[in-house]
Amino acid sequence: MKKGRDFAAGGFAARRKTPLPTHHPSSNRKGTILDIQTILHPIQDELAQVEARLLAEAETPYAGLNTALSHLLRAGGKRIRPALALLAVHVAADGDFDRDKAIRFATGTELLHTATLIHDDMVDKAELRRGQPTLNTILPAGLVVLVGDYLFARSAVLGAGVENTPLTLLYARTLETICGGELRQAFSNRDWRQSKAAYYQKIYSKTAALFILATEGGALLVDAPQAVQETLREYGHKLGLAFQIVDDILDFISTCQELGKPVGSDLRQGTVTLPTLYYLADAPADNPVRRYLDHGIEAPGPEKERQLAEAVAAIAASAAIEKSYQEAATFAHEAQVALATLPDSQYCHSLHELASYVVRRRN
Amino acid sequence: MKKGRDFAAGGFAARRKTPLPTHHPSSNRKGTILDIQTILHPIQDELAQVEARLLAEAETPYAGLNTALSHLLRAGGKRIRPALALLAVHVAADGDFDRDKAIRFATGTELLHTATLIHDDMVDKAELRRGQPTLNTILPAGLVVLVGDYLFARSAVLGAGVENTPLTLLYARTLETICGGELRQAFSNRDWRQSKAAYYQKIYSKTAALFILATEGGALLVDAPQAVQETLREYGHKLGLAFQIVDDILDFISTCQELGKPVGSDLRQGTVTLPTLYYLADAPADNPVRRYLDHGIEAPGPEKERQLAEAVAAIAASAAIEKSYQEAATFAHEAQVALATLPDSQYCHSLHELASYVVRRRN
Repeated sequence: MKKGRDFAAGGFAARRKTPLPTHHPSSNRKGTILDIQTILHPIQDELAQVEARLLAEAETPYAGLNTALSHLLRAGGKRIRPALALLAVHVAADGDFDRDKAIRFATGTELLHTATLIHDDMVDKAELRRGQPTLNTILPAGLVVLVGDYLFARSAVLGAGVENTPLTLLYARTLETICGGELRQAFSNRDWRQSKAAYYQKIYSKTAALFILATEGGALLVDAPQAVQETLREYGHKLGLAFQIVDDILDFISTCQELGKPVGSDLRQGTVTLPTLYYLADAPADNPVRRYLDHGIEAPGPEKERQLAEAVAAIAASAAIEKSYQEAATFAHEAQVALATLPDSQYCHSLHELASYVVRRRN
Repeated sequence: MKKGRDFAAGGFAARRKTPLPTHHPSSNRKGTILDIQTILHPIQDELAQVEARLLAEAETPYAGLNTALSHLLRAGGKRIRPALALLAVHVAADGDFDRDKAIRFATGTELLHTATLIHDDMVDKAELRRGQPTLNTILPAGLVVLVGDYLFARSAVLGAGVENTPLTLLYARTLETICGGELRQAFSNRDWRQSKAAYYQKIYSKTAALFILATEGGALLVDAPQAVQETLREYGHKLGLAFQIVDDILDFISTCQELGKPVGSDLRQGTVTLPTLYYLADAPADNPVRRYLDHGIEAPGPEKERQLAEAVAAIAASAAIEKSYQEAATFAHEAQVALATLPDSQYCHSLHELASYVVRRRN
């Protein structure tokens, strides 16, 4: 393995439950591997405030809805977007800043994320998310649409409430990028001939745009100099791409328990991600993945499941995983390199570690 | 009929295709009745620009979607929200203003309206809107959700693009009010015991809030003095209530052709509006409307339709229509009274005439 591939080995090694080499970038400068709580320690109080604000969002006048919302918001996920927003604010602030605005902004990024998940799961007819039944398995379709809309609106209020025109504009454009990307995906599904460029465009819209909102937005919130805005934008962009590639890898190699949703969800929907693209590029014309995408996906239940399992296993066992990890690791590395222009601080250090974490995470 | 009821007679008389009395407030000061084109003449060039911008919104990279969107956006409706926005800007501006921002803002209000219609029609399983098949009859549910989201996002970009913090905040809060109102309606449906207060809360969220966004927003856009903002807010508020009451009346007394959708759509969904509330307040305990809401609505197709037709006919023939028109007329009058504090101009005159128009309109 070439030296440049060490990053990639991180994800792969973690999967094999073998210890990471100490020189590996997903360990810190002293060679120890940091867990997410340790990485986010400098902002743990602020993250607790974000958590409280998120749960407050589940206090609507509708008891039935509140139970569902609070389940959904409690099930949580990693809160990586608010964490990025808060870290970016700390890194970009020259001295003191309006803490309440920062908390509101950070909460808004997670609400926006949650709103998109609600509609996405409905569109994809997904049944599990973060280990919980999705809203669309609990509520009628109409209500699911409205709940998602309501969270979009709440997020917009938080986004506009920071009273910062450039940030609000970025907020609105991010929403547009995400929604436009969803439409594009709805139209491009199952076309396994799509290019890597199309894949990158997709994950930019789906994930990187919101990461950019969190990090560049943090800089805008405190009126940081242009150079800092650009650095944090670059960091969020590259980190978002790395994050989504790893998500797409884990969909093949993780377990249902770790993922909180079934393995192979993307391929089940006919969604072609980087591991599939790499697999198809190297595989013979007749292979289980193409058979599944061309025919199996339309087959009756058990036959579809059989072909899907075969396709997932083929990709998971192939070099496509390693190649995809390499790309994720390269982006994570580029995110870290971008940070070099920022003054050293515990917050900057956390951003650095976070970039390693997103590659080696298991869920 | 008492003098104070003359407004109400306007709507009612129009329904009967009898000429309006010349002293009627829905005629202008010279006693002639103005049509909508005449009323909006002072802003016709700007409305044409709004129209062009709206159609440009249908130019996405997805041919199939563009056809549907352009149908939807062309079918049009009255463009009353952009008209209000433009008139408010003219009335509130002290001298010149940024015309491009005004056009963008006006377009945003209509896009926001269109986005809510798309999701509403999906939630209500409506089949016709503005005489056209609804998107949910043409596209899969998932795509309809995404198209609505995309238009919300485009509207947010236009709303944030005016780079005016108070206006953007109002924009976001309006979105929240609308979505919260939709949720409330989803939870209160078919409860005919709901109060008039609940009805007014509903139509505030559903319609008046967006009218306020158009009119108060117009004042905010040109940094008008507080008093002008409040006047235009009051005007938009009262006009919105009048507009929605008339909408709810027309759902009983108009024709499918005039409405562009089936008569009795609200009651079909179990949605209780002002005419129904008035009818139920005066009717004996056993009446066709209550029978329909309690049982008929769950009956098999033909029986449901029979009971629905009976309920609609009962309300249409009752004094509930006249009483509802009186309320609409009172609100329209209050909207006009609010305008008295503004300097006279052709734009102010248009706002005045518009308040008469919304009561006497037929669709």
